[in-house]
Amino acid sequence: MTLILSNDEVESVLEMPELIPVLEEAYLELAEGRGASRRRSDIVTPTTLREDGLYALKSMDGVIPKFGVGAIRLNSDILTFPQAGNEMRRVKVPAAPGDRYVGLVLLFSTHTGEPLAIMPDGVMQRARVGATNAIAAKHLSRQESRILAVLGSGWQAGAQVTAHCAVRPLEEIRVYSPNAAHREAFAAEMAEATGVPARACASGEEACGGADIVACATNAVMPVFFRDWIEPGMHIGTIRPGATEVERGGWDHIDLFCLLDHDDNAELIYTHGVQVGEDKVGSYGVEHDDWHASLPSLPQIICGRRSGRTDDSQVTCFLNNLGLGYQFAATGYLVHRKARDAGIGHELPTDWFTETVHP
Amino acid sequence: MTLILSNDEVESVLEMPELIPVLEEAYLELAEGRGASRRRSDIVTPTTLREDGLYALKSMDGVIPKFGVGAIRLNSDILTFPQAGNEMRRVKVPAAPGDRYVGLVLLFSTHTGEPLAIMPDGVMQRARVGATNAIAAKHLSRQESRILAVLGSGWQAGAQVTAHCAVRPLEEIRVYSPNAAHREAFAAEMAEATGVPARACASGEEACGGADIVACATNAVMPVFFRDWIEPGMHIGTIRPGATEVERGGWDHIDLFCLLDHDDNAELIYTHGVQVGEDKVGSYGVEHDDWHASLPSLPQIICGRRSGRTDDSQVTCFLNNLGLGYQFAATGYLVHRKARDAGIGHELPTDWFTETVHP
Repeated sequence: MTLILSNDEVESVLEMPELIPVLEEAYLELAEGRGASRRRSDIVTPTTLREDGLYALKSMDGVIPKFGVGAIRLNSDILTFPQAGNEMRRVKVPAAPGDRYVGLVLLFSTHTGEPLAIMPDGVMQRARVGATNAIAAKHLSRQESRILAVLGSGWQAGAQVTAHCAVRPLEEIRVYSPNAAHREAFAAEMAEATGVPARACASGEEACGGADIVACATNAVMPVFFRDWIEPGMHIGTIRPGATEVERGGWDHIDLFCLLDHDDNAELIYTHGVQVGEDKVGSYGVEHDDWHASLPSLPQIICGRRSGRTDDSQVTCFLNNLGLGYQFAATGYLVHRKARDAGIGHELPTDWFTETVHP
Repeated sequence: MTLILSNDEVESVLEMPELIPVLEEAYLELAEGRGASRRRSDIVTPTTLREDGLYALKSMDGVIPKFGVGAIRLNSDILTFPQAGNEMRRVKVPAAPGDRYVGLVLLFSTHTGEPLAIMPDGVMQRARVGATNAIAAKHLSRQESRILAVLGSGWQAGAQVTAHCAVRPLEEIRVYSPNAAHREAFAAEMAEATGVPARACASGEEACGGADIVACATNAVMPVFFRDWIEPGMHIGTIRPGATEVERGGWDHIDLFCLLDHDDNAELIYTHGVQVGEDKVGSYGVEHDDWHASLPSLPQIICGRRSGRTDDSQVTCFLNNLGLGYQFAATGYLVHRKARDAGIGHELPTDWFTETVHP
């Protein structure tokens, strides 16, 4: 049977303490050349929905033989690009029936080829971002990190908190986001979820002062973490392409950068009628240069080919620069195994997604 | 609702005379830069099924704004590479439950992003090959072509016959394949299906003597059409990467070559443990060189940017060099529209394949 899962079902079985070692092992497989990843591609065209919108068909693939799975993650998006101050933001419009987004993960067996599961990507995409930043913190932050500062209180922030709690003996969580009610509610929610005391702070500076780990978890297009906040021994995690969260002037004060993967540009294919300006291209990745190429990747650090933190005074920064379909193979493997064991989801006949015809 | 279709259902609504103009228009859109295609990628890794096997996850995408659709075509294959004479063949093993293959086309709306349909790729893949070669014959063969010779009587051959009948006023179909019973049965079946007299021939030479169009439709790794069979005015269509069907010594006697697309190599990504020798790489595309780059593509000829046949004595040859995800967007568009109108297929709630979570 092929399992069809909802985001609620994915969330009910996907636990950070289980995901982190699975994903770390997957990165090791990738570093050792036993796993393989096809970088993201985006086809971008006009859409008939809105004149100021675009249609984007995004896909990325990955295979992890050790786990016996391959996955394709795809998104079929209506995009708009509203101005926010001087910058252009990239906003997805939920235009599918019922005001819904379209993002799917298809999981396949490398033993038989069969489709094991079809799942939405939303909960998995948040979890793999959080887990990846936590794996980076495990290799880059000080072993005895006690204080986590989270900048942001939205969708990504929760996964950052639970993931970091799984890798470091945190004793205090601090939250800053511009809206006081949001940060208060989020702090309460995180304290409840993790059992670690969490408090809302009135400023980012207050949250970050004395913090061992700073987790940037916003979709801000402007910096949210500033040069003057950098302290010896601090680890900073980012989740946006180009690490736009960290003030550029502070980069010289960071001793060690690490990025997720060196191949950090989406393959962008577009039609006439699509004005892909610099700001829009920027949304699909960051320009690769010699400096980026010289940095260690997280998989390289996991497998020991490159060094992570070497002393307690270093300032480290993780650039979670672009998503990999490979992450969805690892996450999907865990979700599928647990969902099957728990007996949840819709089962559809595998025959519906296979064929007798030689393709 | 999202429509789930079987190969039988796809076949019941997919008719060559309808597919050919749809696909031709799609190629025009591509040539004009209004449609977009992401070339095929193959991730190749070991499989636990067989030591001499490999797992391959293949995907290719395309979007046709004019038709309001985008598509992803994917294959999750177990491959083996048996020796056949001096050459290595690439054979897919139907290892999914019930001895089935795994190839899917997912069709999306560029208006809302929603998944419109999920279909197996087998019948569509044969139809788009046949239709593409017929479109090439329409632009490259002599207007008054009366005699079609088909080399091969297998799965691809039937689509070649019905497709060519739709573009040229054929009066005679000749069939050669090594097995007499197969070619006799196939000739009878084609005469019945098309209303055009069809006869089995005892040799390829007999079938091709005096033929206006030769359609190679085998999966042979050795040539099946030879230099000495070339006649003035003849058009030859191929369906294998590298056009291995046509004896290399005959290529100098061909006046005009046309290929489907210039970007004719799959993006090949593989893990350690995969021995991808030259023969295997060859299965994923052909090496691109200056000569290939100089040839017109079929979309360029359709839109008039390059010339097709210019006089009745020219010998022409179409190299259907590699499949495009784009072809599945065009074919899927037609199949979905007709299946919906006919009320066939399983309807599943679109909510199963969409989400409220921002991905």
